[in-house]
Amino acid sequence: MSEPFNNWRHMFKLDPNKYITEADLKAVCQSGTDAIMIGGTDDVTLDDVINLLARVRQYPIPCLLEVSNLSSITPGFDHYLIPTVLNSGHKQWMIDLHHQAVKTYGDWIDWDELFMEGYIMLNPASKAYQYTNATAVNTEDVVAYARLIEHLMPLPIMYLEYSGIYGDSALVKRVSHELEKTVLVYGGGIETAEQAKEMAAHAQIIVVGDVIYRDINRAIDTVEAVKQVEQ
Amino acid sequence: MSEPFNNWRHMFKLDPNKYITEADLKAVCQSGTDAIMIGGTDDVTLDDVINLLARVRQYPIPCLLEVSNLSSITPGFDHYLIPTVLNSGHKQWMIDLHHQAVKTYGDWIDWDELFMEGYIMLNPASKAYQYTNATAVNTEDVVAYARLIEHLMPLPIMYLEYSGIYGDSALVKRVSHELEKTVLVYGGGIETAEQAKEMAAHAQIIVVGDVIYRDINRAIDTVEAVKQVEQ
Repeated sequence: MSEPFNNWRHMFKLDPNKYITEADLKAVCQSGTDAIMIGGTDDVTLDDVINLLARVRQYPIPCLLEVSNLSSITPGFDHYLIPTVLNSGHKQWMIDLHHQAVKTYGDWIDWDELFMEGYIMLNPASKAYQYTNATAVNTEDVVAYARLIEHLMPLPIMYLEYSGIYGDSALVKRVSHELEKTVLVYGGGIETAEQAKEMAAHAQIIVVGDVIYRDINRAIDTVEAVKQVEQ
Repeated sequence: MSEPFNNWRHMFKLDPNKYITEADLKAVCQSGTDAIMIGGTDDVTLDDVINLLARVRQYPIPCLLEVSNLSSITPGFDHYLIPTVLNSGHKQWMIDLHHQAVKTYGDWIDWDELFMEGYIMLNPASKAYQYTNATAVNTEDVVAYARLIEHLMPLPIMYLEYSGIYGDSALVKRVSHELEKTVLVYGGGIETAEQAKEMAAHAQIIVVGDVIYRDINRAIDTVEAVKQVEQ
Protein backbone atom coordinates (compact mmCIF):
# COMPACT_ATOMS: atom_id res chain seq x y z
CA MET A 1 0.00 0.00 0.00
CA SER A 2 1.21 3.48 -0.70
CA GLU A 3 0.56 5.27 2.56
CA PRO A 4 1.96 8.63 3.68
CA PHE A 5 4.01 6.92 6.38
CA ASN A 6 5.62 4.29 4.19
CA ASN A 7 9.09 5.83 4.48
CA TRP A 8 8.82 7.16 8.00
CA ARG A 9 11.17 5.92 10.72
CA HIS A 10 10.57 8.23 13.68
CA MET A 11 7.64 10.07 15.27
CA PHE A 12 7.39 12.26 18.32
CA LYS A 13 4.23 11.83 20.35
CA LEU A 14 3.00 14.89 22.17
CA ASP A 15 0.46 14.64 24.95
CA PRO A 16 -2.14 17.43 24.77
CA ASN A 17 -2.42 17.16 28.53
CA LYS A 18 1.25 17.98 29.19
CA TYR A 19 2.97 21.34 29.05
CA ILE A 20 5.78 21.90 26.57
CA THR A 21 7.76 25.13 26.24
CA GLU A 22 7.91 26.90 22.91
CA ALA A 23 11.65 26.25 22.69
CA ASP A 24 11.19 22.51 23.26
CA LEU A 25 8.33 22.35 20.78
CA LYS A 26 10.47 24.08 18.19
CA ALA A 27 13.32 21.64 18.86
CA VAL A 28 10.97 18.68 18.43
CA CYS A 29 9.38 19.99 15.23
CA GLN A 30 12.71 20.92 13.66
CA SER A 31 14.52 17.78 14.79
CA GLY A 32 14.21 15.94 11.49
CA THR A 33 11.55 13.57 12.85
CA ASP A 34 9.07 12.38 10.22
CA ALA A 35 5.90 13.49 11.96
CA ILE A 36 4.31 14.75 15.15
CA MET A 37 1.59 12.57 16.62
CA ILE A 38 -0.75 14.16 19.13
CA GLY A 39 -2.40 11.74 21.51
CA GLY A 40 -2.81 10.68 25.11
CA THR A 41 -4.90 8.53 27.39
CA ASP A 42 -5.89 10.86 30.22
CA ASP A 43 -8.28 13.75 29.99
CA VAL A 44 -7.71 14.53 26.34
CA THR A 45 -9.85 17.59 25.70
CA LEU A 46 -10.77 19.34 22.48
CA ASP A 47 -9.31 22.64 23.68
CA ASP A 48 -5.94 21.11 24.50
CA VAL A 49 -5.82 19.26 21.18
CA ILE A 50 -6.66 22.36 19.13
CA ASN A 51 -4.18 24.46 21.09
CA LEU A 52 -1.35 22.00 20.54
CA LEU A 53 -2.24 21.52 16.86
CA ALA A 54 -2.09 25.27 16.30
CA ARG A 55 1.33 25.44 17.92
CA VAL A 56 2.70 22.53 15.85
CA ARG A 57 1.29 24.11 12.70
CA GLN A 58 3.89 26.85 12.94
CA TYR A 59 6.34 24.27 11.58
CA PRO A 60 6.29 22.48 8.21
CA ILE A 61 5.87 18.93 9.50
CA PRO A 62 3.07 16.38 9.16
CA CYS A 63 0.81 16.40 12.22
CA LEU A 64 -1.34 13.40 13.13
CA LEU A 65 -4.07 12.95 15.69
CA GLU A 66 -4.22 9.61 17.42
CA VAL A 67 -7.87 9.50 18.34
CA SER A 68 -8.51 8.57 21.95
CA ASN A 69 -12.07 9.80 22.31
CA LEU A 70 -14.78 11.22 20.11
CA SER A 71 -15.05 14.55 21.89
CA SER A 72 -11.49 15.62 21.13
CA ILE A 73 -11.55 15.09 17.36
CA THR A 74 -11.08 18.23 15.28
CA PRO A 75 -10.42 18.89 11.61
CA GLY A 76 -7.05 20.25 10.54
CA PHE A 77 -4.73 17.29 11.01
CA ASP A 78 -2.95 15.69 8.07
CA HIS A 79 -3.95 12.21 9.15
CA TYR A 80 -5.95 10.51 11.86
CA LEU A 81 -4.81 7.30 13.50
CA ILE A 82 -7.58 5.14 14.92
CA PRO A 83 -6.46 2.55 17.45
CA THR A 84 -8.21 -0.81 17.59
CA VAL A 85 -7.04 -2.75 20.62
CA LEU A 86 -6.58 -6.33 19.47
CA ASN A 87 -5.85 -7.75 22.92
CA SER A 88 -8.62 -5.88 24.68
CA GLY A 89 -11.00 -8.06 26.67
CA HIS A 90 -13.96 -6.06 25.38
CA LYS A 91 -15.22 -5.71 21.84
CA GLN A 92 -15.91 -2.00 22.34
CA TRP A 93 -12.18 -1.22 22.13
CA MET A 94 -11.84 -3.24 19.01
CA ILE A 95 -14.79 -2.10 16.91
CA ASP A 96 -17.90 -0.97 18.80
CA LEU A 97 -16.69 2.58 19.58
CA HIS A 98 -15.46 2.89 16.00
CA HIS A 99 -18.81 1.65 14.72
CA GLN A 100 -20.60 4.22 16.84
CA ALA A 101 -18.32 6.98 15.52
CA VAL A 102 -18.85 5.94 11.91
CA LYS A 103 -22.60 5.77 12.50
CA THR A 104 -22.58 9.32 13.87
CA TYR A 105 -20.01 11.00 11.60
CA GLY A 106 -19.85 8.67 8.57
CA ASP A 107 -21.23 11.20 6.11
CA TRP A 108 -18.50 13.73 6.92
CA ILE A 109 -15.46 11.47 7.08
CA ASP A 110 -12.66 11.77 4.52
CA TRP A 111 -11.65 8.12 4.57
CA ASP A 112 -8.30 8.75 2.92
CA GLU A 113 -7.14 10.64 6.02
CA LEU A 114 -7.89 7.76 8.39
CA PHE A 115 -5.64 4.85 9.26
CA MET A 116 -6.46 2.04 11.63
CA GLU A 117 -3.73 0.94 14.02
CA GLY A 118 -3.88 -2.62 15.34
CA TYR A 119 -2.74 -1.97 18.93
CA ILE A 120 -1.25 -4.54 21.25
CA MET A 121 -1.07 -3.32 24.84
CA LEU A 122 2.07 -4.74 26.41
CA ASN A 123 2.51 -3.00 29.76
CA PRO A 124 0.00 -4.36 32.29
CA ALA A 125 0.86 -1.54 34.70
CA SER A 126 -0.06 1.21 32.24
CA LYS A 127 -3.27 3.18 32.32
CA ALA A 128 -3.95 2.45 28.64
CA TYR A 129 -3.72 -1.29 29.30
CA GLN A 130 -6.06 -1.12 32.25
CA TYR A 131 -8.42 1.35 30.60
CA THR A 132 -8.94 -0.97 27.61
CA ASN A 133 -9.19 -4.11 29.76
CA ALA A 134 -6.30 -5.63 27.86
CA THR A 135 -5.33 -9.25 28.37
CA ALA A 136 -1.84 -10.61 28.90
CA VAL A 137 -0.04 -11.80 25.78
CA ASN A 138 3.19 -13.67 25.11
CA THR A 139 5.32 -13.60 21.96
CA GLU A 140 3.27 -16.34 20.29
CA ASP A 141 0.08 -14.39 20.89
CA VAL A 142 1.53 -11.26 19.35
CA VAL A 143 2.85 -13.21 16.36
CA ALA A 144 -0.65 -14.61 15.80
CA TYR A 145 -2.15 -11.11 15.94
CA ALA A 146 0.48 -9.98 13.44
CA ARG A 147 -0.48 -12.78 11.07
CA LEU A 148 -4.16 -11.92 11.44
CA ILE A 149 -3.69 -8.28 10.48
CA GLU A 150 -1.12 -8.99 7.78
CA HIS A 151 -3.27 -11.61 6.06
CA LEU A 152 -6.89 -11.78 7.16
CA MET A 153 -8.00 -8.45 8.60
CA PRO A 154 -5.51 -6.20 6.87
CA LEU A 155 -4.60 -3.06 8.79
CA PRO A 156 -2.04 -0.48 7.64
CA ILE A 157 -0.32 -0.30 11.05
CA MET A 158 0.52 -2.67 13.90
CA TYR A 159 1.41 -0.77 17.06
CA LEU A 160 3.33 -2.49 19.85
CA GLU A 161 2.56 -0.29 22.85
CA TYR A 162 4.72 -0.64 25.93
CA SER A 163 3.52 2.74 27.22
CA GLY A 164 6.08 3.95 29.74
CA ILE A 165 8.41 0.97 29.85
CA TYR A 166 11.10 -0.11 27.43
CA GLY A 167 9.97 -3.24 25.64
CA ASP A 168 11.25 -6.64 24.61
CA SER A 169 13.35 -6.17 21.48
CA ALA A 170 13.35 -9.92 20.82
CA LEU A 171 9.55 -9.82 20.62
CA VAL A 172 9.63 -6.80 18.31
CA LYS A 173 12.16 -8.57 16.08
CA ARG A 174 10.09 -11.76 15.96
CA VAL A 175 6.93 -9.85 15.06
CA SER A 176 8.70 -7.84 12.36
CA HIS A 177 9.32 -11.05 10.44
CA GLU A 178 5.58 -11.53 10.03
CA LEU A 179 4.80 -8.16 8.50
CA GLU A 180 5.25 -7.07 4.93
CA LYS A 181 2.25 -4.95 4.00
CA THR A 182 1.53 -3.79 7.53
CA VAL A 183 3.86 -1.17 9.02
CA LEU A 184 5.27 -2.08 12.44
CA VAL A 185 5.32 0.76 14.96
CA TYR A 186 7.03 0.53 18.33
CA GLY A 187 6.21 2.80 21.24
CA GLY A 188 7.29 2.81 24.86
CA GLY A 189 10.12 3.85 27.14
CA ILE A 190 12.65 5.01 24.56
CA GLU A 191 14.93 7.43 26.43
CA THR A 192 18.29 7.07 24.71
CA ALA A 193 19.82 6.96 21.26
CA GLU A 194 20.89 3.37 21.94
CA GLN A 195 17.34 2.26 22.70
CA ALA A 196 16.06 4.10 19.64
CA LYS A 197 18.58 2.25 17.48
CA GLU A 198 17.76 -1.11 18.98
CA MET A 199 14.04 -0.85 18.32
CA ALA A 200 14.47 0.85 14.93
CA ALA A 201 16.41 -2.18 13.76
CA HIS A 202 13.13 -4.13 13.90
CA ALA A 203 10.23 -1.68 13.84
CA GLN A 204 9.78 0.58 10.83
CA ILE A 205 8.67 3.51 12.95
CA ILE A 206 9.58 4.22 16.54
CA VAL A 207 7.58 6.62 18.64
CA VAL A 208 9.30 8.76 21.25
CA GLY A 209 7.13 10.47 23.83
CA ASP A 210 7.69 10.83 27.57
CA VAL A 211 11.39 11.69 27.42
CA ILE A 212 10.50 14.90 25.58
CA TYR A 213 9.12 16.19 28.86
CA ARG A 214 12.06 14.97 30.96
CA ASP A 215 15.16 15.54 28.85
CA ILE A 216 14.65 17.33 25.55
CA ASN A 217 18.22 16.82 24.41
CA ARG A 218 18.08 13.07 24.80
CA ALA A 219 14.75 13.07 23.01
CA ILE A 220 16.18 14.96 20.06
CA ASP A 221 19.16 12.57 19.92
CA THR A 222 16.83 9.66 19.10
CA VAL A 223 16.02 11.18 15.69
CA GLU A 224 19.54 11.07 14.39
CA ALA A 225 20.10 7.66 15.97
CA VAL A 226 17.21 6.11 14.04
CA LYS A 227 18.33 7.53 10.72
CA GLN A 228 21.62 5.63 11.07
CA VAL A 229 19.87 2.29 11.38
CA GLU A 230 18.93 0.03 8.52
CA GLN A 231 15.75 -1.81 9.24
CA MET B 1 -8.84 -6.79 -5.23
CA SER B 2 -8.64 -9.67 -7.60
CA GLU B 3 -10.31 -12.47 -5.70
CA PRO B 4 -11.59 -15.78 -7.07
CA PHE B 5 -15.18 -14.74 -6.36
CA ASN B 6 -15.04 -11.36 -8.07
CA ASN B 7 -17.38 -12.42 -10.87
CA TRP B 8 -19.56 -14.79 -8.94
CA ARG B 9 -23.29 -14.12 -8.56
CA HIS B 10 -24.72 -17.30 -7.03
CA MET B 11 -23.66 -19.92 -4.50
CA PHE B 12 -25.40 -22.96 -3.12
CA LYS B 13 -24.80 -23.61 0.57
CA LEU B 14 -24.87 -27.23 1.63
CA ASP B 15 -25.21 -28.20 5.27
CA PRO B 16 -22.94 -31.12 6.19
CA ASN B 17 -25.51 -32.07 8.79
CA LYS B 18 -28.34 -32.52 6.28
CA TYR B 19 -28.95 -35.42 3.91
CA ILE B 20 -28.97 -34.80 0.16
CA THR B 21 -29.61 -37.46 -2.46
CA GLU B 22 -27.05 -38.10 -5.18
CA ALA B 23 -29.50 -36.88 -7.81
CA ASP B 24 -30.12 -33.61 -5.98
CA LEU B 25 -26.41 -33.07 -5.38
CA LYS B 26 -25.74 -33.60 -9.07
CA ALA B 27 -28.48 -31.13 -9.97
CA VAL B 28 -27.00 -28.54 -7.62
CA CYS B 29 -23.43 -28.99 -8.84
CA GLN B 30 -24.39 -28.93 -12.50
CA SER B 31 -26.88 -26.09 -12.15
CA GLY B 32 -24.53 -23.40 -13.40
CA THR B 33 -24.05 -21.94 -9.90
CA ASP B 34 -20.65 -20.36 -9.34
CA ALA B 35 -19.61 -22.36 -6.32
CA ILE B 36 -20.67 -24.75 -3.60
CA MET B 37 -20.20 -23.53 -0.05
CA ILE B 38 -20.22 -26.12 2.71
CA GLY B 39 -21.20 -24.81 6.10
CA GLY B 40 -23.66 -24.98 8.95
CA THR B 41 -24.22 -23.93 12.53
CA ASP B 42 -25.26 -27.14 14.29
CA ASP B 43 -23.08 -30.12 15.00
CA VAL B 44 -20.72 -29.65 12.09
CA THR B 45 -18.38 -32.64 12.31
CA LEU B 46 -15.19 -33.42 10.45
CA ASP B 47 -16.59 -36.71 9.11
CA ASP B 48 -19.66 -35.04 7.65
CA VAL B 49 -17.59 -32.25 6.08
CA ILE B 50 -15.11 -34.66 4.48
CA ASN B 51 -17.91 -36.89 3.24
CA LEU B 52 -19.76 -34.01 1.60
CA LEU B 53 -16.56 -32.55 0.14
CA ALA B 54 -15.74 -35.90 -1.48
CA ARG B 55 -19.20 -36.09 -3.01
CA VAL B 56 -19.03 -32.51 -4.38
CA ARG B 57 -15.56 -33.22 -5.79
CA GLN B 58 -17.12 -35.53 -8.37
CA TYR B 59 -18.13 -32.34 -10.18
CA PRO B 60 -15.92 -29.63 -11.68
CA ILE B 61 -17.05 -26.75 -9.49
CA PRO B 62 -15.27 -24.62 -6.86
CA CYS B 63 -15.95 -25.90 -3.37
CA LEU B 64 -15.57 -23.64 -0.31
CA LEU B 65 -15.66 -24.39 3.37
CA GLU B 66 -17.28 -21.81 5.58
CA VAL B 67 -15.50 -22.48 8.83
CA SER B 68 -17.81 -22.81 11.80
CA ASN B 69 -15.50 -24.56 14.23
CA LEU B 70 -11.88 -25.61 14.40
CA SER B 71 -12.54 -29.33 14.68
CA SER B 72 -14.24 -29.60 11.29
CA ILE B 73 -11.53 -27.95 9.18
CA THR B 74 -9.91 -30.18 6.58
CA PRO B 75 -7.58 -29.59 3.65
CA GLY B 76 -8.90 -30.11 0.12
CA PHE B 77 -11.21 -27.14 -0.37
CA ASP B 78 -10.51 -24.47 -2.98
CA HIS B 79 -11.10 -21.67 -0.52
CA TYR B 80 -11.95 -21.17 3.12
CA LEU B 81 -14.35 -18.49 4.30
CA ILE B 82 -13.79 -17.28 7.84
CA PRO B 83 -16.76 -15.47 9.39
CA THR B 84 -16.13 -12.60 11.78
CA VAL B 85 -19.40 -11.53 13.39
CA LEU B 86 -19.37 -7.75 13.47
CA ASN B 87 -22.56 -7.37 15.50
CA SER B 88 -21.71 -10.06 18.02
CA GLY B 89 -21.86 -8.96 21.63
CA HIS B 90 -18.65 -10.87 22.36
CA LYS B 91 -15.20 -10.27 20.98
CA GLN B 92 -14.56 -14.01 20.66
CA TRP B 93 -16.83 -14.17 17.58
CA MET B 94 -15.07 -11.26 16.05
CA ILE B 95 -11.40 -12.09 16.55
CA ASP B 96 -10.52 -14.18 19.60
CA LEU B 97 -11.40 -17.58 18.11
CA HIS B 98 -9.58 -16.59 14.92
CA HIS B 99 -6.58 -15.51 16.94
CA GLN B 100 -6.55 -18.83 18.76
CA ALA B 101 -6.72 -20.70 15.45
CA VAL B 102 -3.90 -18.69 13.92
CA LYS B 103 -1.83 -19.22 17.05
CA THR B 104 -2.34 -22.98 16.79
CA TYR B 105 -2.20 -23.51 13.02
CA GLY B 106 -0.45 -20.36 11.74
CA ASP B 107 2.63 -22.19 10.45
CA TRP B 108 0.55 -24.44 8.18
CA ILE B 109 -1.91 -21.94 6.78
CA ASP B 110 -1.91 -21.03 3.09
CA TRP B 111 -3.13 -17.48 3.50
CA ASP B 112 -4.12 -17.09 -0.14
CA GLU B 113 -6.88 -19.66 0.35
CA LEU B 114 -8.49 -17.79 3.24
CA PHE B 115 -11.05 -15.00 3.05
CA MET B 116 -12.60 -13.20 5.96
CA GLU B 117 -16.33 -12.53 5.81
CA GLY B 118 -17.69 -9.62 7.82
CA TYR B 119 -20.96 -11.14 9.00
CA ILE B 120 -24.00 -9.24 10.15
CA MET B 121 -26.56 -11.47 11.85
CA LEU B 122 -30.01 -10.19 10.96
CA ASN B 123 -32.50 -12.78 12.18
CA PRO B 124 -32.82 -12.64 15.97
CA ALA B 125 -34.78 -15.91 15.95
CA SER B 126 -31.99 -17.87 14.26
CA LYS B 127 -29.62 -20.21 16.04
CA ALA B 128 -26.60 -18.49 14.48
CA TYR B 129 -27.74 -15.13 15.87
CA GLN B 130 -28.27 -16.51 19.35
CA TYR B 131 -25.14 -18.66 19.27
CA THR B 132 -22.96 -15.64 18.52
CA ASN B 133 -24.78 -13.37 21.00
CA ALA B 134 -25.56 -10.97 18.19
CA THR B 135 -27.06 -7.58 18.92
CA ALA B 136 -30.00 -5.97 17.15
CA VAL B 137 -29.11 -3.64 14.29
CA ASN B 138 -31.05 -1.24 12.10
CA THR B 139 -30.20 -0.03 8.60
CA GLU B 140 -27.97 2.79 9.89
CA ASP B 141 -26.01 0.32 11.98
CA VAL B 142 -25.43 -1.96 9.02
CA VAL B 143 -24.41 0.99 6.82
CA ALA B 144 -21.84 1.99 9.45
CA TYR B 145 -20.45 -1.57 9.54
CA ALA B 146 -20.24 -1.49 5.74
CA ARG B 147 -18.26 1.75 5.84
CA LEU B 148 -15.94 0.30 8.47
CA ILE B 149 -15.06 -2.76 6.42
CA GLU B 150 -14.92 -0.91 3.12
CA HIS B 151 -12.59 1.79 4.42
CA LEU B 152 -10.97 1.11 7.78
CA MET B 153 -10.80 -2.62 8.45
CA PRO B 154 -10.92 -3.86 4.88
CA LEU B 155 -12.49 -7.28 4.44
CA PRO B 156 -13.03 -8.99 1.08
CA ILE B 157 -16.64 -9.97 1.87
CA MET B 158 -19.60 -8.51 3.75
CA TYR B 159 -22.23 -11.15 4.47
CA LEU B 160 -25.80 -10.11 5.32
CA GLU B 161 -27.14 -13.21 7.04
CA TYR B 162 -30.90 -13.53 7.48
CA SER B 163 -30.55 -17.28 8.10
CA GLY B 164 -33.94 -18.83 7.41
CA ILE B 165 -36.00 -15.74 6.72
CA TYR B 166 -36.21 -13.60 3.62
CA GLY B 167 -34.57 -10.26 4.29
CA ASP B 168 -35.16 -6.57 3.78
CA SER B 169 -34.23 -5.75 0.18
CA ALA B 170 -34.26 -2.02 0.92
CA LEU B 171 -31.54 -2.58 3.53
CA VAL B 172 -29.52 -4.70 1.11
CA LYS B 173 -29.85 -2.00 -1.54
CA ARG B 174 -28.80 0.76 0.86
CA VAL B 175 -25.75 -1.21 2.03
CA SER B 176 -24.72 -2.03 -1.54
CA HIS B 177 -24.19 1.68 -2.19
CA GLU B 178 -21.42 1.74 0.44
CA LEU B 179 -19.32 -1.08 -0.99
CA GLU B 180 -16.90 -0.95 -3.86
CA LYS B 181 -13.89 -3.08 -2.91
CA THR B 182 -15.81 -5.35 -0.54
CA VAL B 183 -18.11 -7.94 -2.14
CA LEU B 184 -21.66 -7.95 -0.78
CA VAL B 185 -23.13 -11.39 -0.14
CA TYR B 186 -26.77 -11.97 0.77
CA GLY B 187 -28.04 -15.12 2.45
CA GLY B 188 -31.39 -16.09 3.90
CA GLY B 189 -34.79 -17.38 2.93
CA ILE B 190 -34.47 -17.33 -0.85
CA GLU B 191 -37.03 -19.85 -2.11
CA THR B 192 -38.09 -18.52 -5.49
CA ALA B 193 -36.63 -17.14 -8.69
CA GLU B 194 -38.34 -13.82 -7.95
CA GLN B 195 -36.67 -13.50 -4.57
CA ALA B 196 -33.32 -14.48 -6.09
CA LYS B 197 -33.70 -11.73 -8.68
CA GLU B 198 -34.72 -9.14 -6.12
CA MET B 199 -31.68 -9.71 -3.90
CA ALA B 200 -29.28 -10.19 -6.82
CA ALA B 201 -30.17 -6.71 -8.03
CA HIS B 202 -28.32 -5.37 -4.96
CA ALA B 203 -25.98 -8.07 -3.64
CA GLN B 204 -23.17 -9.32 -5.85
CA ILE B 205 -23.57 -12.89 -4.64
CA ILE B 206 -26.70 -14.53 -3.32
CA VAL B 207 -26.53 -17.72 -1.31
CA VAL B 208 -29.29 -20.30 -1.61
CA GLY B 209 -29.46 -23.00 1.03
CA ASP B 210 -32.51 -24.42 2.80
CA VAL B 211 -34.79 -24.66 -0.24
CA ILE B 212 -32.41 -27.25 -1.71
CA TYR B 213 -33.68 -29.66 0.91
CA ARG B 214 -37.34 -28.77 0.45
CA ASP B 215 -37.84 -28.20 -3.27
CA ILE B 216 -34.84 -28.95 -5.48
CA ASN B 217 -36.48 -27.61 -8.63
CA ARG B 218 -37.20 -24.24 -7.13
CA ALA B 219 -33.64 -24.13 -5.80
CA ILE B 220 -32.22 -24.80 -9.26
CA ASP B 221 -34.44 -22.11 -10.77
CA THR B 222 -32.68 -19.44 -8.68
CA VAL B 223 -29.45 -19.93 -10.66
CA GLU B 224 -30.90 -18.93 -14.00
CA ALA B 225 -32.88 -16.14 -12.36
CA VAL B 226 -29.76 -14.51 -10.97
CA LYS B 227 -27.90 -14.64 -14.27
CA GLN B 228 -30.64 -12.52 -15.86
CA VAL B 229 -30.15 -9.71 -13.35
CA GLU B 230 -27.74 -6.84 -13.76
CA GLN B 231 -26.37 -5.77 -10.45
